[in-house]
Amino acid sequence: MPHEPKPGTPVQDLDTPVLLLDLDALQRNIARMARFFADKPAALRPHAKTHKCPQIALRQLEAGAIGITCAKVGEAEVMAQAGIRDILIANQVVGPLKIDRLTDLASSCDLIVAVDNPANVRALAQACQAKGVSLRVLVEVDMGMHRCGVQPGDAALRLAGQVYDAPNLQFAGLLGYEGHLVMVADPQQRANKVRQAMIPLQETCQLLHNAGLPVEIASGGGTGTYDVTGTCPPITEVEAGSYVLMDATYHKVRPEFEIALTVLSTVVSRPAPDRLVVDAGIKSMTQEFGWPQPLGVEGASIRKLSEEHGILELADPGTVHLRPGDKVRFIPSHCCTTVNLHDTFYVVQDDALVDRWPIAARGRVQ
Amino acid sequence: MPHEPKPGTPVQDLDTPVLLLDLDALQRNIARMARFFADKPAALRPHAKTHKCPQIALRQLEAGAIGITCAKVGEAEVMAQAGIRDILIANQVVGPLKIDRLTDLASSCDLIVAVDNPANVRALAQACQAKGVSLRVLVEVDMGMHRCGVQPGDAALRLAGQVYDAPNLQFAGLLGYEGHLVMVADPQQRANKVRQAMIPLQETCQLLHNAGLPVEIASGGGTGTYDVTGTCPPITEVEAGSYVLMDATYHKVRPEFEIALTVLSTVVSRPAPDRLVVDAGIKSMTQEFGWPQPLGVEGASIRKLSEEHGILELADPGTVHLRPGDKVRFIPSHCCTTVNLHDTFYVVQDDALVDRWPIAARGRVQ
Repeated sequence: MPHEPKPGTPVQDLDTPVLLLDLDALQRNIARMARFFADKPAALRPHAKTHKCPQIALRQLEAGAIGITCAKVGEAEVMAQAGIRDILIANQVVGPLKIDRLTDLASSCDLIVAVDNPANVRALAQACQAKGVSLRVLVEVDMGMHRCGVQPGDAALRLAGQVYDAPNLQFAGLLGYEGHLVMVADPQQRANKVRQAMIPLQETCQLLHNAGLPVEIASGGGTGTYDVTGTCPPITEVEAGSYVLMDATYHKVRPEFEIALTVLSTVVSRPAPDRLVVDAGIKSMTQEFGWPQPLGVEGASIRKLSEEHGILELADPGTVHLRPGDKVRFIPSHCCTTVNLHDTFYVVQDDALVDRWPIAARGRVQ
Repeated sequence: MPHEPKPGTPVQDLDTPVLLLDLDALQRNIARMARFFADKPAALRPHAKTHKCPQIALRQLEAGAIGITCAKVGEAEVMAQAGIRDILIANQVVGPLKIDRLTDLASSCDLIVAVDNPANVRALAQACQAKGVSLRVLVEVDMGMHRCGVQPGDAALRLAGQVYDAPNLQFAGLLGYEGHLVMVADPQQRANKVRQAMIPLQETCQLLHNAGLPVEIASGGGTGTYDVTGTCPPITEVEAGSYVLMDATYHKVRPEFEIALTVLSTVVSRPAPDRLVVDAGIKSMTQEFGWPQPLGVEGASIRKLSEEHGILELADPGTVHLRPGDKVRFIPSHCCTTVNLHDTFYVVQDDALVDRWPIAARGRVQ
């Protein structure tokens, strides 16, 4: 059975592939984001889809976050079980089985959910009435990402009015995630585009205000845009997730946060001087945002990941003395999906294991 | 907490996203492959990395498979716990912690492992000696895939000789996986390339035979090449995995096997006539081999998968009447990695649930 290492075990002695979480970098990322929001009108409600781990969510709350964001009911259930009380499910919850779980959960915590269509509003209201619970609801507005959401303006007003009138639902405001802008490379261009995208949301807030539908919450923003979105009306809270762990992709646009997440692998073969094969493939680290980055191996780049192999090419083989049994660390290209492949964070400090945290909401896609 | 449906539940009433396994299609795939190998000199040792599920492995063995193949020690441990005795780990097992687990396992089942370097052979022999166990060993030969493996010919002979001479190791033969050829689109070209690739392996067998090192096992082949590799000297066993579940990618080259695996999702939003959003994203189905295929939705194609959303574009919106709450099924583009995202197969027959099988080796990357 898999090795269960004791605290104090040096990182180099851990079995692999293994997901390493640098506790100091994590805490500094949490503190940095908390400091940013400490004196801003908007608040931080970090997205737990990134880490799926109550131990991390609780640290974010301790540092000042007003609650957490989840993508799925299953994630919210795990967080609620850990004692977290203020949870936004920034997503549509559709279908009788899920709404049943949602309303169960609403009786034990302060839940907010997003909607973007009238039938779903009716179904939520009916279920809440039947169980005698109340639910806060945000109307999702399409900010140009073209995923979910109603159009800003009249469509948002109509749906907000329906929520307002529905029994047991409390209209709480708007969800407007500018996900199509979080990776714009140039910071100035990113900021301009975000401010531009916020105008219709701001106008919608005004429209709702004039109609007697006050927008208490306007939620948006990600790690790529937190500083702009978090200081831009009408946003009242920001859902950034990745900042806490970081990855190679986000690090390009957000160098102020540290890489807290790496995957440790073992060299299993060096079949040619210019080729290294490690025991971490796409079942250990994802590739939809590009290859993970090998750390500290000069001239190394990934040629291919197969399921359980990472194949590295070496530009300058003579300078790399790694042999089977040696360890290679990688920075994932996408932290959220890489974490979702693993069951446990191996928490390390000064290159030694200090704890293991279950990724309790891993795989909770329902 | 997630809904636990009873047997008999109609598929349409299952919560989503959920991994559906069509039992009849699965059994027909198992039977078809078993029939192929029934009268061939080579045998079938299916790869369990695809399904990671003892219930499926046991059905493959019942149908005539001589054992199973695994990619990792952790998978082999799960299969051995389920009572499976003949297991090939078609991979290098490197490092003291893993070799310790490997040799533990070798005391309770008949284990075969691959090697491609002398230091690993010494480490395996030492560990086996220390525990008083014996291990069968295949020398991995690079068939042109350029992943692991020694070169055919003299290099293979030298390593085989080292294994033969090592205490507690039993030289059992060669591993030669032609993974770079399994997806060649044209069947005739694929067959020619495979036969060509087998020549150096055949010559290596002859070389070993002449040196008094008989090759009892020559393992290779995948779902894309089983019929050629399985009838081509020197191959004695074939490691095909995906045939049992199938996916959209392999179905293009292997239409004789049925799609037994689908992902069921729920429409959560239809924000525009030509756009549908479902609750299955890349945390429910992988995309490294391309988009999953929506089933039975005319003119629909995936525009993007985000983590928990699948965004579909509709070429002819007027003909598609799906609304939030309706279900959409997808054929994954890569069964092996999609299965690895889920904890359970929902086994269905005639569109009703008959069983739930744990994907017991999911995430066992160590």
